[in-house]
Amino acid sequence: MTAESPRFVHADELGWTDLGGGVSRQVLGHDGELMMVRVRFDAGAVGTVHHHPHRQVTLVESGRFQVEISHEARELKAGDGFFIPPGVEHGVVAMEAGVLVDVFTPARQDFLHTDGR
Amino acid sequence: MTAESPRFVHADELGWTDLGGGVSRQVLGHDGELMMVRVRFDAGAVGTVHHHPHRQVTLVESGRFQVEISHEARELKAGDGFFIPPGVEHGVVAMEAGVLVDVFTPARQDFLHTDGR
Repeated sequence: MTAESPRFVHADELGWTDLGGGVSRQVLGHDGELMMVRVRFDAGAVGTVHHHPHRQVTLVESGRFQVEISHEARELKAGDGFFIPPGVEHGVVAMEAGVLVDVFTPARQDFLHTDGR
Repeated sequence: MTAESPRFVHADELGWTDLGGGVSRQVLGHDGELMMVRVRFDAGAVGTVHHHPHRQVTLVESGRFQVEISHEARELKAGDGFFIPPGVEHGVVAMEAGVLVDVFTPARQDFLHTDGR
């Protein structure tokens, strides 16, 4: 585990962590307070509704997602995004293959552990 | 000024703030503690070296950028990123047209003021 990423992050030097169900994750720049993560979804893959104490802001980098926040659902496309206050339930379904850019504060230490960094 | 963005952020409903010199900015999801911003650069456009007390993590969404952090320069392409600790000098030059996804903690209140939200 590394508490802080290198300042320059080259994607070619990073792996993708397969989360199963057509979802994989790549942790980009981070320290203990801020963490950027790209999450790749196959068409139809699901990010189950969940919540966490970390604030989260997300960009739809590509694809089309059904996004549910606190029991309200909307369809979002590339260039759109969403904001999750601490503790608020949220989940996604990929309507087509795509990538989300999730950023958290504080960092998701659980990702560093499970991804073995 | 709005302290907190809507939870669902539709890019079509947002404008771009022209910063001059071939650079424009769109503020996406945010509250006072976390803020996501897309920054569009024409080829050759420059983000002058500067520093701020906010932590920053960035993804190169598209294009190719020469990125300078604390007097070290690297070329980064789509999918790469960088991390800026508080107060550390950084700047970019767009080698081709492209977009950076910048995320800050705490939020850049100065962007909310200048963008007139």
